[in-house]
Amino acid sequence: MLTDDQGFGDLSCFGSPSIHSPNLDRMAAAGIKMTNFYAFPSCSPSRAAFLTGCYPPRVGIPDVVAPPGPAWTRDKQYGLHPDETTLAEILKAAGYATGMVGKWHLGHFAETMPTRQGFDHFFGLPYSNDMQPERGYPDLALLKNTDTLEINPDQSQLTSRYTAAALDFIREQQDTSFFLYLAHSMPHTPIYASANFQGKSKQGLYADVVQEIDASVGAILAELTTLGLEENTLVIFTSDNGPWLIYGNHAGSAGPFREGKGTTWEGGMRVPMIARWPAKIPAGSISRMPASLIDLLPTLAQATAAPLPERKIDGRNLLAHLSNPAHPASAPPETPFCYYRSGNLDAVRLGKWKLHVPHQYRYVETVGDDGEGGQYAYTMTGLELYDLAGDPGERYNVAASYPEKTAELEGLINRLQQEMDQDRRLPFYGPGQPPGARRDNTGQ
Amino acid sequence: MLTDDQGFGDLSCFGSPSIHSPNLDRMAAAGIKMTNFYAFPSCSPSRAAFLTGCYPPRVGIPDVVAPPGPAWTRDKQYGLHPDETTLAEILKAAGYATGMVGKWHLGHFAETMPTRQGFDHFFGLPYSNDMQPERGYPDLALLKNTDTLEINPDQSQLTSRYTAAALDFIREQQDTSFFLYLAHSMPHTPIYASANFQGKSKQGLYADVVQEIDASVGAILAELTTLGLEENTLVIFTSDNGPWLIYGNHAGSAGPFREGKGTTWEGGMRVPMIARWPAKIPAGSISRMPASLIDLLPTLAQATAAPLPERKIDGRNLLAHLSNPAHPASAPPETPFCYYRSGNLDAVRLGKWKLHVPHQYRYVETVGDDGEGGQYAYTMTGLELYDLAGDPGERYNVAASYPEKTAELEGLINRLQQEMDQDRRLPFYGPGQPPGARRDNTGQ
Repeated sequence: MLTDDQGFGDLSCFGSPSIHSPNLDRMAAAGIKMTNFYAFPSCSPSRAAFLTGCYPPRVGIPDVVAPPGPAWTRDKQYGLHPDETTLAEILKAAGYATGMVGKWHLGHFAETMPTRQGFDHFFGLPYSNDMQPERGYPDLALLKNTDTLEINPDQSQLTSRYTAAALDFIREQQDTSFFLYLAHSMPHTPIYASANFQGKSKQGLYADVVQEIDASVGAILAELTTLGLEENTLVIFTSDNGPWLIYGNHAGSAGPFREGKGTTWEGGMRVPMIARWPAKIPAGSISRMPASLIDLLPTLAQATAAPLPERKIDGRNLLAHLSNPAHPASAPPETPFCYYRSGNLDAVRLGKWKLHVPHQYRYVETVGDDGEGGQYAYTMTGLELYDLAGDPGERYNVAASYPEKTAELEGLINRLQQEMDQDRRLPFYGPGQPPGARRDNTGQ
Repeated sequence: MLTDDQGFGDLSCFGSPSIHSPNLDRMAAAGIKMTNFYAFPSCSPSRAAFLTGCYPPRVGIPDVVAPPGPAWTRDKQYGLHPDETTLAEILKAAGYATGMVGKWHLGHFAETMPTRQGFDHFFGLPYSNDMQPERGYPDLALLKNTDTLEINPDQSQLTSRYTAAALDFIREQQDTSFFLYLAHSMPHTPIYASANFQGKSKQGLYADVVQEIDASVGAILAELTTLGLEENTLVIFTSDNGPWLIYGNHAGSAGPFREGKGTTWEGGMRVPMIARWPAKIPAGSISRMPASLIDLLPTLAQATAAPLPERKIDGRNLLAHLSNPAHPASAPPETPFCYYRSGNLDAVRLGKWKLHVPHQYRYVETVGDDGEGGQYAYTMTGLELYDLAGDPGERYNVAASYPEKTAELEGLINRLQQEMDQDRRLPFYGPGQPPGARRDNTGQ
């Protein structure tokens, strides 16, 4: 279960002072909460990372994908190449029924749709819910497999319709092994809750929307229990990036972290992550080990005895760690984590240390649905080193105090970027199209 | 149990990505977590509020108390007037044994010490642990009742010695009703952990220090269980203000909130609060109702059938709410919450709305134990209105969008400040001293 633009701080069990999330709180208490878990700064790269086990530029998804619309989309009509091996494909090869419900956002060509990437069933939207006619995009199609069911559907019904489709899939597949990827469109702006949830939280529309997602989680977990599948089903809940702060009261909270979506500050990429698997994961666990969406493919491959893709992947198998998170030896060998944004390696984390090399970033201030203000582009002028254990908010650049660590990580980041540049796929612009020159991206 | 300068975000159950607090997490799961709970911006005012049930200026503690030392302390040698009725005094009148362990910080005259304010037993420091000779203060005395046990004690032993003293008190009083006020000196800078905890968290010294406090909580809860007192003992854990951000990696995190200690932004005053009372409070509760340290005296008076003080108090009785937090009718009538700083009413909260009137505040950036930078004084130039439900981080000033709400709260804040000015006690500078003229405060 993947939500869209939900921040680290947007669940009660991750410290929200406002949002009521009893189902996810119970799920965390019955499983593991990972507090150093990373997505990537925007939608498509995170989804590519999840489905391929690779850093987004390695599989040709350096940045967000978009249908033809406003000016910034002119070089963004690419998708995940059909040759890439997805998590759905390897699980299907291992005998799993595969279904996807919700937002895809990995290409809108026939060759790049979910049903061509290993999913037997698909119900949902091809991309973000804000890519609609009133914002200069084509009609937004709600699809069943490759058929258009509706255009420009009532978005207040998306969460409940996705939930119903997910429950249908689970019931239909209850006698076989199954893999369900439920990618909620909410709480990505424009946010909507159904009538039952509007005003329910008394904490504003954003909290209403998250509360409806929480209720969806509760319904799915209850169905697993009813079907006798609770004990041996792994359920994972996370988000695709941090909160989209320019939307003010319609955006979430990055909790203690700096900035939000679209940046390589922790607020852009650190997301809530909960996993429950009663047969395997000790209840009430908390893990502070750095991990990421790229680790899910190798972990699920191990858990299901599915074959790994033949290509090089970047993720690590977390299964031993999830099974025994309190034991230090259960952690996989420490590897650097790469903060890719628009194909560029802005920063690297090794253990508790994070080094940023100079890059542009945006800073959001006093804006939003009710407020006013703007977002500003900053360019970092030097190396910045942060101790993420003692300073998770990236407030204190300690590069001058730790010159050796800074130099070590600067060498590492240069090597990693070079290696990636030698083994990255160009974006796939559709059959018969030459790969376009990569341009800077300013939109999301 | 009151900690010093611990931020809202400094426990795992309040969203810390780094700090391991299993005992407090379990305590919250067995009781209630309050996520809209307020202290005041600095040490002495919060302690006065807790012990009297009044806003700090009402009882003559507008600001931090200090022994004679650096220049800023010259008008800060005051204390809580002996005539004020404290929580310890009313509980003693109701038959409770009363003990205090830890940091007092409500006056260092003979007339203002804990043993003159209702505590039968005292073991601890008269004020903050940074008020020591190397910073221009007198010798720091570790006291037992009014006797000096040691001067300038080894601060790495404070948490463990306080814990031992608390356990001794509980064991000694196990056959009677008792009230123990344990006020940790940590994690107020300079921070220290004992040898068993140094390096234990692997998240830096600050996390080590909080982990030692968490272990102290665990030891106390275990002792209550051993003595058969678990079921009917109310245990409360909270902090006296937000993190002291200028100390960088030696400061905590305000979680999703703006700024920290010394300010009336939420980061300065919103603190973690956990209460456990198995006989009365439903396990696993979360309350989002605004509440504050001033509410504890009337709540505990009700719980123990103790007599209320004869003076006007500001707090409300929360007992019905704690007993049935899920029921809206259990909440006391809604009243404004007043954000007093240095005796001035900077802001008021009513429901989800918070209005700031123009005031000075400090803003901290890129500083700390390892970093460099500074803190800056800002002066707010106009009214600022925030929706704390949808925007807990006070990012979006919506005064222009809600002129009627702004005007209503501006009228309210003016009325509340006038009422306070007509019924506030001047600071008590010790027997025979004329009350000093109040001056602006710049220190903590």
